[in-house]
Amino acid sequence: MALLKVSENVEDQAIAAKHAARKVSLLTAEEKNEALLRIADALEAEFVSILNANAKDLDAGRQQGFEPAFMDRLALSKERITDFAAGLRQVAKLEDPSGRIVSSWTLDNCLQVEKITVPLGVIGMIYEARPNVTVDAAGLALKSGNSIVLKGGSSALHSNQAIVDVMHRALEETKIPQEAVQFVFSTDREATQKLFTMKEHIDVLIPRGGASLIQAVVNNATVPVLETGVGNCHLYIDKDADPAKAMYILVNAKTDRPAVCNAAETVLIHKGWLASNYSLLNDTLREHNISVHGDEAAVKLIPKAIPAGEEDWKNEYLSLDIAVKIVHDMEEAITHIDRYGTKHSEAIITENKENAEHFMKLVDASALYHNASTRFTDGNALGFGAEIGISTQKLHARGPMGLPALTTVKFKMRGNGQVR
Amino acid sequence: MALLKVSENVEDQAIAAKHAARKVSLLTAEEKNEALLRIADALEAEFVSILNANAKDLDAGRQQGFEPAFMDRLALSKERITDFAAGLRQVAKLEDPSGRIVSSWTLDNCLQVEKITVPLGVIGMIYEARPNVTVDAAGLALKSGNSIVLKGGSSALHSNQAIVDVMHRALEETKIPQEAVQFVFSTDREATQKLFTMKEHIDVLIPRGGASLIQAVVNNATVPVLETGVGNCHLYIDKDADPAKAMYILVNAKTDRPAVCNAAETVLIHKGWLASNYSLLNDTLREHNISVHGDEAAVKLIPKAIPAGEEDWKNEYLSLDIAVKIVHDMEEAITHIDRYGTKHSEAIITENKENAEHFMKLVDASALYHNASTRFTDGNALGFGAEIGISTQKLHARGPMGLPALTTVKFKMRGNGQVR
Repeated sequence: MALLKVSENVEDQAIAAKHAARKVSLLTAEEKNEALLRIADALEAEFVSILNANAKDLDAGRQQGFEPAFMDRLALSKERITDFAAGLRQVAKLEDPSGRIVSSWTLDNCLQVEKITVPLGVIGMIYEARPNVTVDAAGLALKSGNSIVLKGGSSALHSNQAIVDVMHRALEETKIPQEAVQFVFSTDREATQKLFTMKEHIDVLIPRGGASLIQAVVNNATVPVLETGVGNCHLYIDKDADPAKAMYILVNAKTDRPAVCNAAETVLIHKGWLASNYSLLNDTLREHNISVHGDEAAVKLIPKAIPAGEEDWKNEYLSLDIAVKIVHDMEEAITHIDRYGTKHSEAIITENKENAEHFMKLVDASALYHNASTRFTDGNALGFGAEIGISTQKLHARGPMGLPALTTVKFKMRGNGQVR
Repeated sequence: MALLKVSENVEDQAIAAKHAARKVSLLTAEEKNEALLRIADALEAEFVSILNANAKDLDAGRQQGFEPAFMDRLALSKERITDFAAGLRQVAKLEDPSGRIVSSWTLDNCLQVEKITVPLGVIGMIYEARPNVTVDAAGLALKSGNSIVLKGGSSALHSNQAIVDVMHRALEETKIPQEAVQFVFSTDREATQKLFTMKEHIDVLIPRGGASLIQAVVNNATVPVLETGVGNCHLYIDKDADPAKAMYILVNAKTDRPAVCNAAETVLIHKGWLASNYSLLNDTLREHNISVHGDEAAVKLIPKAIPAGEEDWKNEYLSLDIAVKIVHDMEEAITHIDRYGTKHSEAIITENKENAEHFMKLVDASALYHNASTRFTDGNALGFGAEIGISTQKLHARGPMGLPALTTVKFKMRGNGQVR
């Protein structure tokens, strides 16, 4: 089997990806789907080679004393690899986002105008430990007609390389050139810096990971960036909140998966609601081992609460900690969110529909919830089928980004000698 | 009349714009339209004050010895001001791009999902001499529910200030707060630098002007940028081009308005076509005073052509100069465009439909033309009604940007206690 020769040079890889992108952009949906299904089959068939490589990363991780949560994200199993394959088969079933005629019209002079979706070109993916991103991102990029340059975290280097090797072997028998999936094997910072600035070869960078990774990309890249993920999400429990609903949603938003970006980090509680539901709140927090960082009023009312400072309002705890602030009215809650929120997901719990609509209209965020958990801000949960990340920016795409976020448009004008 | 107090501090202006943006975002289309019509009336009624201010700018320009073309862009007249007003009345008639439900669906758990367009917030407009941008950009920003911070060129300072004064007086009697239109009076670079970095107050920067202005914004801004306008546009005259059509389009694309971004800068000519149409080409170029910078083959065939270097292929002449390259086939033309094009507007002239479709599919640009002039890449020409600029980037918006480019989306989720 002729494996793709790994280039030592990131620029060469980006150029190869650009050439491959043109070829991928010309393929039919069927040809791209066929390739995804081949990759899915190959991942399942060759899971042993992936697990062997993963064992190396896990050994290294143990020696470096990584935290259990980190090791858990890094660890692969036959079942997880089967999930990767299932994800690809799911993406193969989704509608091709490219080649869709957005609109078309004819000018008075008979010039025909067609606005059509086309792939972005080359996607640069910069991510941390999770090896599933390698498969997910490649699948979404190829399905939408792009090529991809993958730069994963060094802790998952062997796992990612093994996965990409399997993908390359599978692509050999398909219409998608192997060069459409580039894996940056280098772990040095120079390679990453280079990725940040190759505007002529890379069309967009998508960072996936913690706040510091994302900020490094946003602040240093001249290639356009799709900013993803940091979520300092708030729940506002309004005066007219149903107590049971409020606690049910609070527990889910905080404890279901505390380490993800759509978990709640601060709860803003109307003082009128708290006056009647003080015991219920305390029982709920205690029962679910939620540690409270409270403002002055909250510290007085909640046992074991420790005083919250400016940093707490800004913090994405990603743990069972939560910041609690007692507010006098909804406006105070909205002002707080406006100041400290990351425009990701914000929820209001209330039986007052007018308040709910006002909150959802005024708060500037990608996802606004009335009486539901912030945890739904997720491509799968919302039925997109798969997501490349959750955009916290306003341009191009906002909120969970599915396949259409990996396309742009072209205007095609067909004439017969028209001039202005 | 209580005029808006001009703040000396750009950050204060941006904060005021942000507060005003929230108010504008809550207005109905009727309330916004009413404000635009008031401004239109006021501009016509108070044209004398604007012309007086413009006279100061023109005097200063004459003393500084600006070129006639520059002075022409700067000069206002009663008629031009009437055109500004007409433009605003046109924008008032366009559909409100915000508050449009893009899609909505209900999850199996009965959570209702609604994806709805909302204004971007605060638009930062950085532009050069043309005072019409002051009116056009403010009109489009307000109509789409945004506020705007205007930073025009120093050569038009008095004209712009007078226009903004008129707008502020007109807004006094409307639902749009005066603070929604901020004009940066300062001409120092510090004020511009500050605009580049106020991510917390400004949602997007739109530069309008020459390549150096646009690159300064793209390279220095941390606020997201909608890159506009630099157009190194090509005409490819294919082997099967109709000679008359080719010359008609060439003349229009090059000479109709040479100083605009959608004018043609390079013509790539198939050698087979040239062999039979050599005299026609030379007659056409001579008759229209087009100066040729040619590659080796072109210099031999075209009288008075001067040799073209690497810089010519990159150059946006914005004059009656044109670069000419003789190509052996369409692939060579596509490769040339891929290397030197700015992804703005690219045209193929041919009677071969297959070649035309191949060209429009493979060339990576916002607008592709078959047998028509590149001059149609323009919001008005394409029937958008008005444009805020022509995007040469791939993210968010591509090509001529109308009102929808000034909006983003929000997901609103309405539930009854749903958790994951």
